[in-house]
Amino acid sequence: MNAVELIKKKRNGLTLTNEEINYLITSYVKGKIPDYQFSAFLMAAFLKGMNKEETSYLTKAMLYSGKAIDLSSVKGKKIDKHSTGGVGDKTSLILAPIVAAAGVNVPMISGRGLGHTGGTLDKLEAIPGFRTDINLRRYKQILEKCGAVMIGQTKDIAPADKSIYALRDVTGTIESIPLITASIMSKKLAEGIDGLVLDVKTGSGAFMKRTADAKKLAASLIETAESFDKKVVAFITDMNQPLGNYIGNWLEVYESVMTLQGGLTEDLNEVTFNLIAAMLILGGKAKTIEEGIEIAQYEIRSGRAFDKFLEIVKLQKGDVSYLKNPEKYPRSKYEEKIYSEKTGYIKAIDNYSIGLAALELGAGRKTLTDKIDAKAGIIFYPKIGKRIKKGELTAKIFTDKKSQIEVAKKMIYDSLTYSGKKVRAPKLIKTVINL
Amino acid sequence: MNAVELIKKKRNGLTLTNEEINYLITSYVKGKIPDYQFSAFLMAAFLKGMNKEETSYLTKAMLYSGKAIDLSSVKGKKIDKHSTGGVGDKTSLILAPIVAAAGVNVPMISGRGLGHTGGTLDKLEAIPGFRTDINLRRYKQILEKCGAVMIGQTKDIAPADKSIYALRDVTGTIESIPLITASIMSKKLAEGIDGLVLDVKTGSGAFMKRTADAKKLAASLIETAESFDKKVVAFITDMNQPLGNYIGNWLEVYESVMTLQGGLTEDLNEVTFNLIAAMLILGGKAKTIEEGIEIAQYEIRSGRAFDKFLEIVKLQKGDVSYLKNPEKYPRSKYEEKIYSEKTGYIKAIDNYSIGLAALELGAGRKTLTDKIDAKAGIIFYPKIGKRIKKGELTAKIFTDKKSQIEVAKKMIYDSLTYSGKKVRAPKLIKTVINL
Repeated sequence: MNAVELIKKKRNGLTLTNEEINYLITSYVKGKIPDYQFSAFLMAAFLKGMNKEETSYLTKAMLYSGKAIDLSSVKGKKIDKHSTGGVGDKTSLILAPIVAAAGVNVPMISGRGLGHTGGTLDKLEAIPGFRTDINLRRYKQILEKCGAVMIGQTKDIAPADKSIYALRDVTGTIESIPLITASIMSKKLAEGIDGLVLDVKTGSGAFMKRTADAKKLAASLIETAESFDKKVVAFITDMNQPLGNYIGNWLEVYESVMTLQGGLTEDLNEVTFNLIAAMLILGGKAKTIEEGIEIAQYEIRSGRAFDKFLEIVKLQKGDVSYLKNPEKYPRSKYEEKIYSEKTGYIKAIDNYSIGLAALELGAGRKTLTDKIDAKAGIIFYPKIGKRIKKGELTAKIFTDKKSQIEVAKKMIYDSLTYSGKKVRAPKLIKTVINL
Repeated sequence: MNAVELIKKKRNGLTLTNEEINYLITSYVKGKIPDYQFSAFLMAAFLKGMNKEETSYLTKAMLYSGKAIDLSSVKGKKIDKHSTGGVGDKTSLILAPIVAAAGVNVPMISGRGLGHTGGTLDKLEAIPGFRTDINLRRYKQILEKCGAVMIGQTKDIAPADKSIYALRDVTGTIESIPLITASIMSKKLAEGIDGLVLDVKTGSGAFMKRTADAKKLAASLIETAESFDKKVVAFITDMNQPLGNYIGNWLEVYESVMTLQGGLTEDLNEVTFNLIAAMLILGGKAKTIEEGIEIAQYEIRSGRAFDKFLEIVKLQKGDVSYLKNPEKYPRSKYEEKIYSEKTGYIKAIDNYSIGLAALELGAGRKTLTDKIDAKAGIIFYPKIGKRIKKGELTAKIFTDKKSQIEVAKKMIYDSLTYSGKKVRAPKLIKTVINL
C-alpha cells in the first residue's frame, strides 16, 4: 500500500477498505506519511465523503492509535455526554454531579475552547487549583470513589485525533461529517463508556448552522457508535442564542453553582435536565425523560448535587471555598454595563459574535498559546422573543483589557436584531433521536 | 488574505481572484504557506476545478515566480514545441535541427523522464559530454549562433512550478487540466517564444488516456497561451504504441540520427514532419502543412538537418563522434531477443507497460535519485494492425541488470494482444487545433 494510491482512490470517489484506512492512520501517526500527503487525503475525504463503514474504520483506527480505557472493574453503568460546542454551554458542569449523585458513573474527557465556543476544561480550570491533567490510573480511582471524573485528553487517548485535528484546522477540512464523527467518537469510545448522550448544537452560535446538517451529524455519530455496540441518544438543540446568561469561564462555573443550588435559568435548566434524564435512562436509573427530570430535581433539592460537585472538585484538587463563597473570587479590572439602544422584541441574536466578543474580552484563545483570563466574559440577558426597553440593562462585560471594552460593546450591540412585532422564541430541543 | 480562507473558498467551489491566486503562489514559494496547506489547496483545485481566468492567473503567478527570458534581441521568430510525454517520443531531437536549419529559432527548455515516459534532457545527455545545465546568457548566445538550443529548466525559470510539481506528484494531484496547463505554460512562456506547437498525446502510453481529455487539455493550453498573446497550434496524436521503434535514451538518439539522415520510420516521420510544418507556419516560413513537410524533407536530403544537429551538439559540448559513428557507443552487458509466441494481427499494445519495461531495464528513474543507464532500452517492432508470425523477432532488450531481463520480457509479452482478424491501425494524428 502507498499513500499516493490511497489519496487517488479517495479522490476518485472510491471506497477505502478497513486495511487501507488503518494504513493511512497508523502511518500518519508514526510519521511515515507526511502532513502534506495527509492533508491532501483529508481534502479528498472532505469533498468526496466517506460512507458509514469507512467512518467506522476511521474511528477504530483513531481509537486504537492510543489506549481504550477499561472501566469494567468500576461498578455500575458509565455514561458520558458530549456537546458539539456552543456559547454559554456549561451543561457538563451541572449534569456530571447530578448524574453521579443519582448513581450513574460519568467518566468525562473534555476539550478546550475552540474558536468562538467555550471548553469544559477551561471552565473547570477557572476553579483555583482544579487539575484536569490527571493520569488514567487516577482517573479510574476518582471515578470509583465519587462516580464522576472530568479530565482533559491525555496523550494516550486517541493521539491520532490530536494530530489530525490540528492539521484539519489549518487546511480547511474541519466541517466534514465523517471526519467530525471519527474525531468525536474515537475519543469518546476510549473513555470506557457504556453509552453516550449527544447534544448536537445548531444555529448561529454552533459549528453546524443548519438543523439538517446537525441531524446528519447526529445520525453519523449514532451509526458509528452502534458499530461499536454503544448505545447513543442524540439531542438536536438550539444554539441561536447563548445557553443561560453567563459566558466566560468563571462566570459559567458561577452559573453552574447557582443551578446546582436550585437556580432557575429556564433555557439552561431545560437542556441540562433533558440531557441528565437521557443519561439516567441509558444508565438504567430512569424509564422516561419525565422520571429522569424528577430525579435531577430531587438531587438538587436534597443538596446532594452540589455536594457531589464539591466532592469532584476536591478530588481534583480544586479549592471549593470559591464555590461556597463566590464573592471572594478575583474581580476583573473593568466591569461595564451595556444598555439597550432601542425598544422592541429581540428577533435574532448573532450568537457567533457573542462568542467572539467573550473571546476578545479574554475568555478564549486566538492562538494556541494565548492565556485565558478566567474572570473575563459577559453576562447577557436578551433572549429571542423577549421584549426589551430602550435604556434597559442588556449585558455586563468583564475584562482586564481596557482596549477591548469598546470592541466587545460594539459586537454585542450589533449582535441584536429587534422587531416591532412579537417574535416567537425558538424551540430549544428540536429533536431527540434514538431514545 | 490567509491560506485557510482561500483553501475553503476553492473547496466550496468558488472562483479565486488574480490577487488571491497570486498570494497563494508567492507565499508558497517564499515558504510562508507550508506544504500541508498548499497540498490541501491543490486537492481542492483538483476536485473543484479552476476556470479559464483562474488558470491564466495561476500561470502568470507561476511564470513570474521566476524570470521571463527576453529574446527580442535574437533575430527571427522563436517557436518551440511541447509534448505531453509518451513512449519513444524523440521528435524534439529531430525537429529542433530541422526547424533551425529552415530559419526559425527553436529555444527549447525541456524536462526529464517522468514515470513510464522518457524525457528530452535524459536523451540528450546520452550523448557523451552533452550539457543541458546551461545558464540563460549562454542559452541566448547558442540560440543566436545556431538557431536552436536545448536546455533543462534552470532555477530562474518558473521556480514555483518545480516545487508545486514535486508536491503534486506525491499528493495525487497530477491529472488536473488547470494544474497541468499552468505547469506547462508557465515554463514555456518563460522561454521567450513567439509561438508554440503542442503535441498532446492520448492513449495507453500517454498521461491522458482518453482523446476527450487530451482535447480539453489542448483547449485549456491554447486559451491560456492566447491570454498571453501567444499563438499556439495543438496536435492530438496517438500514443497507443511507441512512436518509432526505439525506446531508451541512447537508442532514441540513434533513431533520431537515422531519421535526420533520411531514415524512414513511418509513424515517427509522420508526427515529426507535421509538428515541424506547424512550427514553420508559426515561424512564417511555410504557408501550409504540405509546404512545411516539403521543406523538412529538403533539409534532410540536403544534409543541412544532420549538420545542424551536429552544430547544436557541439555548442552544447557533446561529443559528435558518437553521432557520426554510433557503433563506437558502449554496449549493454546483456542484449536479448524476444520472439513472438503467437501468430496474428496486433490488436492492441499496452504502451504503458512498454514504457515501464524500459524503465525496469534502466532507461528511467524509479526515484528522483536513481541514475539512468543511457544504453538501456528496447527496440520494439510490433505496430497495431501489423501481422506477426510465431517465432518472428518482436523486440530486443538492452540492459546491464541481469535480474531485470525476465521482468521486462514478461512485460513485453504481456503487452501484446493478438487478433485472428485484420485490425485497422489507429489514426496517428487525431486532430489539429487552431491552425
